[in-house]
Amino acid sequence: MTQTVKYLLDESRIPKFWYNLVADLPVPPPPPLHPGTLQPLGPDDLTPLFPVSLIQQEVATEREIEIPKPVREIYRQWRPSPLYRARRLEQALDTPARIYYKYEGVSPAGSHKPNTAVPQAFYNREAGIRRIATETGAGQWGSSLAFAGALFGIEVEIFMVRVSYNQKPYRRALMETWGATCTASPSEQTAAGRAILAQRPDHPGSLGIAISEAVEVAAQRDDTNYALGSVLNHVLLHQTVIGLEALAQLEMADDYPDIIVGCTGGGSNFAGIAFPFLGAQLRGGRKVQLIAVEPAACPTLTRGPYAYDFGDTAHLTPLTKMHTLGSTFTPPGFHAGGLRYHGMAPLVSHVKQLGLIEARAYHQLTCFEAGVLLARTEGILPAPEANHAIRGAIDEALRCKEEGVSRAILFNLCGHGHFDMQAYMDYFADKLTDQAYDEAELAMALAGLPSVPAV
Amino acid sequence: MTQTVKYLLDESRIPKFWYNLVADLPVPPPPPLHPGTLQPLGPDDLTPLFPVSLIQQEVATEREIEIPKPVREIYRQWRPSPLYRARRLEQALDTPARIYYKYEGVSPAGSHKPNTAVPQAFYNREAGIRRIATETGAGQWGSSLAFAGALFGIEVEIFMVRVSYNQKPYRRALMETWGATCTASPSEQTAAGRAILAQRPDHPGSLGIAISEAVEVAAQRDDTNYALGSVLNHVLLHQTVIGLEALAQLEMADDYPDIIVGCTGGGSNFAGIAFPFLGAQLRGGRKVQLIAVEPAACPTLTRGPYAYDFGDTAHLTPLTKMHTLGSTFTPPGFHAGGLRYHGMAPLVSHVKQLGLIEARAYHQLTCFEAGVLLARTEGILPAPEANHAIRGAIDEALRCKEEGVSRAILFNLCGHGHFDMQAYMDYFADKLTDQAYDEAELAMALAGLPSVPAV
Repeated sequence: MTQTVKYLLDESRIPKFWYNLVADLPVPPPPPLHPGTLQPLGPDDLTPLFPVSLIQQEVATEREIEIPKPVREIYRQWRPSPLYRARRLEQALDTPARIYYKYEGVSPAGSHKPNTAVPQAFYNREAGIRRIATETGAGQWGSSLAFAGALFGIEVEIFMVRVSYNQKPYRRALMETWGATCTASPSEQTAAGRAILAQRPDHPGSLGIAISEAVEVAAQRDDTNYALGSVLNHVLLHQTVIGLEALAQLEMADDYPDIIVGCTGGGSNFAGIAFPFLGAQLRGGRKVQLIAVEPAACPTLTRGPYAYDFGDTAHLTPLTKMHTLGSTFTPPGFHAGGLRYHGMAPLVSHVKQLGLIEARAYHQLTCFEAGVLLARTEGILPAPEANHAIRGAIDEALRCKEEGVSRAILFNLCGHGHFDMQAYMDYFADKLTDQAYDEAELAMALAGLPSVPAV
Repeated sequence: MTQTVKYLLDESRIPKFWYNLVADLPVPPPPPLHPGTLQPLGPDDLTPLFPVSLIQQEVATEREIEIPKPVREIYRQWRPSPLYRARRLEQALDTPARIYYKYEGVSPAGSHKPNTAVPQAFYNREAGIRRIATETGAGQWGSSLAFAGALFGIEVEIFMVRVSYNQKPYRRALMETWGATCTASPSEQTAAGRAILAQRPDHPGSLGIAISEAVEVAAQRDDTNYALGSVLNHVLLHQTVIGLEALAQLEMADDYPDIIVGCTGGGSNFAGIAFPFLGAQLRGGRKVQLIAVEPAACPTLTRGPYAYDFGDTAHLTPLTKMHTLGSTFTPPGFHAGGLRYHGMAPLVSHVKQLGLIEARAYHQLTCFEAGVLLARTEGILPAPEANHAIRGAIDEALRCKEEGVSRAILFNLCGHGHFDMQAYMDYFADKLTDQAYDEAELAMALAGLPSVPAV
């Protein structure tokens, strides 16, 4: 019987530096703009929200940024995360492809999110901050910051998108067990939330709205900072530990990926696995086909224009140039709540514009089908978000079979689905449907994109 | 800031042999008896239920039993499991104790149970069996056998104790995702189940009843075997990989436990971590204080007599000499469903009789308090069963503080609580109570212990 193979690095191989793609880009990404002046943002504009060390990382141009020792010591609890050769999945697909997956579900919070939650909590604590407000979709980010907050004695206040808040009470309980507080968004606690509720009392919420609420709280309270779980450069930077480890593990396997697949909501897990390989390519190394997979019900990269837009619904955040569906766009309540974001990381959008990555959109049923096949072959029950990456990887493996070619496919299994079992129950009970977004709403959201003078 | 330390073995250090305590015992354990004749059981009596290879392990007396290569290859997916020095917990307790925990929640099913589910599925498949019936309490065992069944193409039929079936729908969904079927027990599908339901239609179920149902199905169908997730010698044997790895990991840490703590339901996770150390002691090595922690609402070791009894309620299984509360005893529906068993592994009972281990009983509230402290310090959210071991370990650490002595305490963190979040929600909502068993029911169950002629 063929068995799955694990490639595990010694803990001395936990990366000592994060990798900053900006250093290797042929063209620098467009600057973020101040929401009031529409002029390029200065570092000082962000000090009400972030500690200086994170702002410096946000604008950093050097290739390597040192990971502080205390952060590496915490990473060590679950890192290096395993890389697997999915032999049992390959066998089930009868494919000549060599399928590898990096498994980030081994972290205490069950996803890749602690890779950035821990340094964010660390830098805030270094700056004397004892309270952080944030948003969460499916809850992977919120629970990760709750975990990191517990380690550093930081109070964490989480605005959770209402549809996920209702779908995933146990994810909430997890955050509360780590000592965080969790509020359904839109809420009555902020002006941004109250304005939305006045228009539509049963609003299901969106990441854009939850971000507005958390930013509002952080901006108003001197003792409180804000933290974001994806999108921003420093978040993508922290996630590069995934790809850096994978590079070393594939070397152990004496292989190199032809194709890398990740799911994209805000873009951080995809960037985390892909950017170190993209950087190697840009420095003259082998070309890798990089595939970002997103939900067809929130098709930011495949449908959204590349334009300056706000990161949140209430327009409290800076504007960044990115693929966007418009900051007022509310995607349907599909189960991969972590992918329900109107925008996309500026760096991911930029490399998409440069033709360095491609994007693909899938509806949820085919993704759950892929996730169940992974569970039955590889034994790991994936998060609905990760099911998108699995679908993409399986389709590439089936293409290998069709073409009779063996390619190495690497995907990021960014989290487990232990808190998403209702979705699986619905799937097995045939209660899950492929939800389409509202075309009229999208058109309206796109019409509302801010008009920005040429920078 | 003090950080938790991980001791990780290279995968070449996955044990090649399981350790059989029987080889080192000063007195052999009493033999199991045939339920019809009350005479010592012959190996042939078990062939309707188990493959010959497992029956041989059940009666084996050699010290080391080789782990088949295909089993080790599957173990490799998550083994060697990490051993942690709980520095952050020590700091929170301000104790001079050195606290270590072995974390078995890294397996795909989230507990130690796959350590035996995988070899059981392997040996059954080798014997040509394609269908296995089993019982499960909280679902840790059922989901582990579902996982192992998926790997070997074995159909798995699970009788799940009704109170857990209702408390934990997502655990059911997990088993179903791996392709198993799951039925609430007592059920209408078996004579044993129907007899119980006739007496009490709302019966909450018990492991004893669910075992009867699974054994009945396996005994009646030629194509179906039975598998047990704890209690039996071969199950405890498979779990010794935990303690064998811990021995090597503590050597890395240049330490040796003064105290080992595990929770006990059927006894397998406790035996798994403790027996390799007990064996070393019996062969002249250092003495270790071994503490079995059980629920005060099902106090098998601390309250039950050491007597021959049936393993199940309908009296279909052999009789074994063990600490028992009587096979008709139904414990209250507390959340640590995996510990709701009337009996105790004969080997664990035997070493308790020999004075080689001690036992302690706790109610659930103080265990949840301990579990929440572990989550907030070490970051791992434990299963309610594991909370019993944590409580025991913390109490020993606090005793170290009181006495001003540094002792090395090792406990088995046998699984995560991702499918037990309702219990945590109830705990935080002050809805959890310390349930007492019914004294009259216990007296009746004990009065019903079978009378067995001296063997």
